Amino acid sequence: MSAEADCLFCKIIAGEIPAERVDEDADTIAFMDINPGSTGHALVIPKKHARDLLEIDDDSLSAVAVAAKRLAGRAVDRLGAEGVNLLNCCGPVAWQTVFHFHMHVVPRYTDDSLQLPWRPVAGDPDAIAATAAALRGSD
Amino acid sequence: MSAEADCLFCKIIAGEIPAERVDEDADTIAFMDINPGSTGHALVIPKKHARDLLEIDDDSLSAVAVAAKRLAGRAVDRLGAEGVNLLNCCGPVAWQTVFHFHMHVVPRYTDDSLQLPWRPVAGDPDAIAATAAALRGSD
Ligand SMILES: [Zn+2]
Ligand SMILES: [Zn+2]
Repeated sequence: MSAEADCLFCKIIAGEIPAERVDEDADTIAFMDINPGSTGHALVIPKKHARDLLEIDDDSLSAVAVAAKRLAGRAVDRLGAEGVNLLNCCGPVAWQTVFHFHMHVVPRYTDDSLQLPWRPVAGDPDAIAATAAALRGSD
Repeated sequence: MSAEADCLFCKIIAGEIPAERVDEDADTIAFMDINPGSTGHALVIPKKHARDLLEIDDDSLSAVAVAAKRLAGRAVDRLGAEGVNLLNCCGPVAWQTVFHFHMHVVPRYTDDSLQLPWRPVAGDPDAIAATAAALRGSD
């Protein structure tokens, strides 16, 4: 489906590049991340090529989210994970390195070494209100 | 809709606790995180209470994902963000602190200080294959 030339993940979908596949449905496939942050770290991708979160259509995005939830449940049931993180990286500045939308499904364990990407410190209420005003309202 | 007593986010939905709301549709609301990781950091939540990723129904999850995409686009268009991360935290071990499902929408900028939660180092292929075998197959 609408494979993009030179897209690594489109080649995985087509079976031209090997991957440890773990799940598939009509709209998505999932396979193991080769640089895992934890045991069971997988990626869910849409079969229909989309560069990133800004480009993916709503149906593909919804299908990816539901597949990610399914894998999260398996990580808990089958791997003994005690929690899960979902992470999407949109854009090089946000750590995206393969430009075919993917959702990281990262099982979590009490003894893992992952760190929250930011320090959760109270923000300035006026600055937050000003930003909210910019974000608010219809597109 | 199915508010849970003592749930902070259900109280925000009900208007009983103030929040800087930035978006709303039939199934979701979005408001600013009071401990922002970057300018424009918002949370998207389902109106229907669900504890976490393992519990949320597919329709609510899809609605949250689509709303998160909408906010990501606004962060780029209106705040000058150059990328966006989506993060969901499922379970205390995965940094969840409010037990009403929420998706972090974190705008990214070249000069921000966020860090990837894990070190992307090549995993052992045999270990990855063994984990894949456990994750694979129908539920
Ligand atoms: Zn592709
Ligand atoms: Zn709630």
